[in-house]
This record gives sequence, structure tokens and C-alpha cells, in this order.
Amino acid sequence: MADEENAYTFTTTATRRITLANLPAGGMPMWRGGRLAEVTLAYESWGELSAAADNAIIIFTGLSPSAHAAASPDDPSPGWWEYMIGPGKAIDTDRFFVVCANSLGGCYGSTGPGSVNPETGQNYGADFPDVTVEDIASSGYYLLRELGVEKIHAAVGSSMGGMSSIAYAMQYPGAIKYLISISAATQALPLTIALRSLQREIIRSDPNWNNGHYTDDTRPLSGMSLARKLGLVSYRAADEWNSKFDRSRLAPDKLSGKRFEREFEIENYLEYNAQKFIHSFDPNSYLYLSRAMDWFDIAEHGESISDGMSKLDVEKALVIGVTTDILFPARQQKEIADVMRETGTEVDYIEIDSVNGHDAFLIDDVHFSPVVKKFLDESVT
Amino acid sequence: MADEENAYTFTTTATRRITLANLPAGGMPMWRGGRLAEVTLAYESWGELSAAADNAIIIFTGLSPSAHAAASPDDPSPGWWEYMIGPGKAIDTDRFFVVCANSLGGCYGSTGPGSVNPETGQNYGADFPDVTVEDIASSGYYLLRELGVEKIHAAVGSSMGGMSSIAYAMQYPGAIKYLISISAATQALPLTIALRSLQREIIRSDPNWNNGHYTDDTRPLSGMSLARKLGLVSYRAADEWNSKFDRSRLAPDKLSGKRFEREFEIENYLEYNAQKFIHSFDPNSYLYLSRAMDWFDIAEHGESISDGMSKLDVEKALVIGVTTDILFPARQQKEIADVMRETGTEVDYIEIDSVNGHDAFLIDDVHFSPVVKKFLDESVT
Repeated sequence: MADEENAYTFTTTATRRITLANLPAGGMPMWRGGRLAEVTLAYESWGELSAAADNAIIIFTGLSPSAHAAASPDDPSPGWWEYMIGPGKAIDTDRFFVVCANSLGGCYGSTGPGSVNPETGQNYGADFPDVTVEDIASSGYYLLRELGVEKIHAAVGSSMGGMSSIAYAMQYPGAIKYLISISAATQALPLTIALRSLQREIIRSDPNWNNGHYTDDTRPLSGMSLARKLGLVSYRAADEWNSKFDRSRLAPDKLSGKRFEREFEIENYLEYNAQKFIHSFDPNSYLYLSRAMDWFDIAEHGESISDGMSKLDVEKALVIGVTTDILFPARQQKEIADVMRETGTEVDYIEIDSVNGHDAFLIDDVHFSPVVKKFLDESVT
Repeated sequence: MADEENAYTFTTTATRRITLANLPAGGMPMWRGGRLAEVTLAYESWGELSAAADNAIIIFTGLSPSAHAAASPDDPSPGWWEYMIGPGKAIDTDRFFVVCANSLGGCYGSTGPGSVNPETGQNYGADFPDVTVEDIASSGYYLLRELGVEKIHAAVGSSMGGMSSIAYAMQYPGAIKYLISISAATQALPLTIALRSLQREIIRSDPNWNNGHYTDDTRPLSGMSLARKLGLVSYRAADEWNSKFDRSRLAPDKLSGKRFEREFEIENYLEYNAQKFIHSFDPNSYLYLSRAMDWFDIAEHGESISDGMSKLDVEKALVIGVTTDILFPARQQKEIADVMRETGTEVDYIEIDSVNGHDAFLIDDVHFSPVVKKFLDESVT
């Protein structure tokens, strides 16, 4: 399980928090209506912005990662994408100025349901406005402008982050030169909506959720644990677990002896990983960001998916799919690439044969690094 | 949704209940230890037993079906496998004497956790002994002997029922002539164990479960609903839902207006089907039968899967897999067939290209009927 030890962290000593000062009057307009008067983003950065401000790369995250994507002098602890980002690595911080923010709506330092509503002095809770992938992309746009970047060299994202990258490119045509989308989707489909809706209902069914009004002492941890386990099941692939766990059973001293309690190693693995997660992640953030993925639909940016995607104005895109991903299957990645190509974007489509399912991008250095490195190397030659 | 309207029913006017009188002294020995002093099975039958008592077919069910597999003069309402069983159908009741029992441990008339323990006068609840697939098979064995059948012409089962058929053949070598296993497994693998374990934990996390001690008025319906939804997600296939639901949304008058409530048709479909199920199915039965599937492992019948399967002594087997089944994938069905063949059983393996996932056998008349019909027709010529 070492591969996941550092997948999710709170803010670190390297995390900076910036309250966006360049929002439109009245605050940041939200895609589904309303405005956020005040937006603070927690972010980390690696490398130096060039004098021409033309070497910035923004990393958009999936549902749960923090801004701590990689180690830095300010915080040498490994980040959630440590193998990918650093000096000489695929996303080369000797060459690029790399920025990663905690998603708007998240709970690792950025404005989200756990933040205080300046208008009421209380936590937003479930009164936070609807958050969409488009809003996450917009907040990244304002952040980069505050950091002095008008045009990004590349936007890179996986899972929800892949959608955010595409949403950025559609909303701000010409503001990105290169786009990398990993295991994302043109729109959420029923199976994925069902899996996420069920996770949200499990959290909401925990009496402690209390319509989003809980305290640090009364968080819906039982619901969060069950929801996280369901997430984990959907993130990985059957064959990986077959070879890792097979039908291994817990040692006798680890059995509770009570009927229906954990007996197989796979059950223990889920419990261990759920417990690791639930004490650091805000249940309301989980609900908001999970729903944001259901809503994502490129067709909302025009008359159709093609019409929405035709808004892209990038030099080139890289789309990556994973053969064993059951949540965002490879055929959905190919669809992204096909639609991009049909609407005039030059695109490389790579299907990676990894055993790690949807989570492959977090783990599978060997397959992912060369593909991302080649694309980014070629983008500057 | 018409395809599922009649998938699960209670006992019908055609259901008979028989208390097994031919059990060994002390009651039916259970595979994981203990004995059941008294075993009642609810069953239905179709067709007539021949004078030579050589035309019996036993149907073993999946987790949730009742004994009412098909209509009969005593109850003309359609059964859960109506297309398969009847005069002139694939399982031809003009020719065969067909028996289907509610599984031991179930809640549709057979002895299970909802039954009264004769030793205490109270419901067993979670004090019911561990139930295994082997025990379900054994109870079928005793039932058939009570009905005058020493040797079965064919045992047919899908999902858990496929495992039961194989368990029957391993436990009583020579007692079955023909074997049909549909979407089963040689042993439960980690992904399936994880999905089922999570369903059980969701039920157990409902405060109303109360360690298995609930009344009709305080059943853990919330947990059952969530668990059933997770089951449904695993029983069907992504593409089927894409074409059936796509991103259709509920009509405005069906929206609650509350944040995170149902908004997509797929969410409504899950809610509708869960509600239809939870009022008729005992949560403790769900826990026991779900766990039985985790435990199933042909290797427990010998030194290895091959060794266990070598106990089979049947004329021929038919193994059917479905291309879109994510719970019991086609490659697991092929494994069953391969092991049978390697250990000396003649076997036909058929992979059905159906869109209906694990549930295909319940729905896909067009693909299933001809395959089962051909096999059974050839078994009597």
C-alpha cells in the first residue's frame, strides 16, 4: 500500500494561500448561477516563472488531492504526483513554472463548504453555491493572472482535473497552448453518475451529516468511510486486486470473531484506506466535487459535444486513457481525442496498458512519465 | 423497466413448504459447522415426475429470487425466469419435472434468519448459523430425495445458483447427469468480495440493523436501499445504461429542489428498483447469502480448484458467460469450463454477447433460450 501513503495531504509548509483580488465586481460568477464574493486558493508552485511569463504549467487535480503535488525546498515531503513533477522529470521544474491549486470547493486550504461565509460569519456547509468543473477552471484562471501569467504553456489534469483542463480551454480560448487530459470524459455517463450519486447518498444517509451542518466532533465519518470504500472499488481494477490479494485472509488474531466482520485482506485494505482518508476530507467538499463531475458536459458549451469542443484553441493536445479504467473507460478517452481531432485540434491519443485502473496516473510512473515527457519536450522544441 | 417487474416475488399460491424429514440424526450438518435441527424449504414445481423418476431438473437461484421461477396452473403470475421455463420452452415442462426452491437462508418461505429457532422460540436473526453455497446445494439434495428423485437429470443455476449447481455436483458425485452453470465462479475474487462486503457493511451501519435484531417495524430500510443500489450497479453494464438513460434528467416537477437530491433518470431508476426490493427482502438473509458467495471456493473441496472440480461425475456440462458481466466476468466462466475439461468433464462453453451484464440471464431470452434448449434437447436424445 506504499503507493498510496502520500496520495492525499493537508496543506503543507509549502502551501501558499492567496485571496483573489482580480475578480469581477461582485465576486466570481459561478457557472450554475450566483457569485462567490471572496475566493481564496491554496496553491504550491515549483520552478521559476520566466521573464516572458511563457513557461507556466497548471495542474488540475482529481476529487481529493491537495495542492501538494510534489516536494519542494519549503516542504520536502513527497507529493501526490511526486514521480511526475520535479527537476528533470516529465513535468520538468528546471524548465517550467508549475502551479497546482487545491480545487475550489475542496478542503485543503481553498474556499469551499468548510470556509466561513463572509456574509454570515458562519461556515457555508451545504449552503455553499453549486460548484462545477467550470468554476474550478475559472478559479485557476484568476489565480494564474494574479501570478502574472496571461497565457499558460500547458494545462494538465487527470480525472476531474482532465475535465477542468478541457473546461479551461473551452472557457478561455487561446489562453492555453498545450493541453493534457488523462482519464477524463466529454460528459458524465449513467454508470459513473450512479456510482457517485450512491456515494453521496451514503454520506447524506449518515445521521451525523445533518443536512451538511456538522461540527468537527460530529462529522459523518461512518458514511464517509463507506463512500470512500465505494470510490476505491471504482478506482482500481479487478486483476490488480487478484494478484495483490487473491483470497488471502486476515491472520486469526486480526479477526473480531463477530459474524459479518472483516475476514479477507481485501476488506482490510478498504478499511485501512478509508480510515486514512476520512479524517482529513470534509464530507461536504466530497458532495460538492462529486456532483460537479456528474454535471460536466462539454455539450453545455455549445449545441453539442462537437460544438463545445470546437471552442478549443490550443496548439496541440495529449489525451491518455487506461485499458483497465472502469470509471472513465479508455473508449471515453478515445472519444475525447476523436472529437478534438474532428473539430480541428491536433491531438495525440495514447492508451496505456496499466493494471492500476482509474488510479493508474497516480501510480504508474513507468507508463505515464515517458508519454507526458515526450509531449512536453516536443512542445518547447 | 418492465423487464424487472416480476424478478422477485414472495411465496405464491403455487408455493409449497416442506419440512425435510430425511435429514441425518441431529439435523442437517452445515458446511462451516453446526447443524440445523429443522429445515423447511419453499419450492414450486412444473411438469410431472416420470415413473422412472429420471426427468427432474433443479433450478438453483441467485441471491434474491423466490421459488416462483415460472407461472403454473396454481399461480399464473409470471415468475422470475418465465421465458426459460414452461411447456415447449428451453426448460421444457412437457418433458421435465422442474423444481425450484427458495434458497436455504433466504426469506421467501425457506428456513432462514427470519425463521423461528425451535430451540428458543425466537427468530434466529443474526444467530442463524453460517450459510454456505454448499448448504444450499445440500438442502436441495434432501428436498429432491423427499420428492422421490435419487438422480437428477440436470441442475441449472445462475450467479450464486451456478455455484450451488457445481457444489451439488461436487458433494454428490454421480447424483447429477447434466450441469448448467451461468455467470458463476470457481471462487469469489477480491473485487466481488469488496462489492459484497461493502453492501453488507452498509446494511450493518444502519442503526436499525441493531446487530440483526430488528422487528418488522424497525427494519434497516435505509441501509438495504443503499446496498441494493450498489448491487444493481454491479449487475448491469455501462453501455446498456448509456443507451437507456444517457444524461436524461427528471422532469422539473419530480425534482425536490434540495441540493444533492436526485436529478438524473439513472438516479431515479436506482431509487425505484431499490424501493421495490427492500420491502420484501429480509436484511439478515441478504447478509447471510451475500457472505455465502464470498466463501465459495472450489479449492475447499480438495487441494486445489482442479482437485475440487475433479470430483464432478456428470455426463456433460454447459457453462455460459456474458461479455458485459463485470461481477462474474466471462473469463471466470471460461476458467470454470477449462478446469472442468482438464479434469475430465465434457463441457460446452458459450460466451453470450449481451448488453445486460450479470443480469443478462434474467432478461436476455433471445440469447439464452436457444443455448439452454439445445443443450437440454441433446441431453435426452
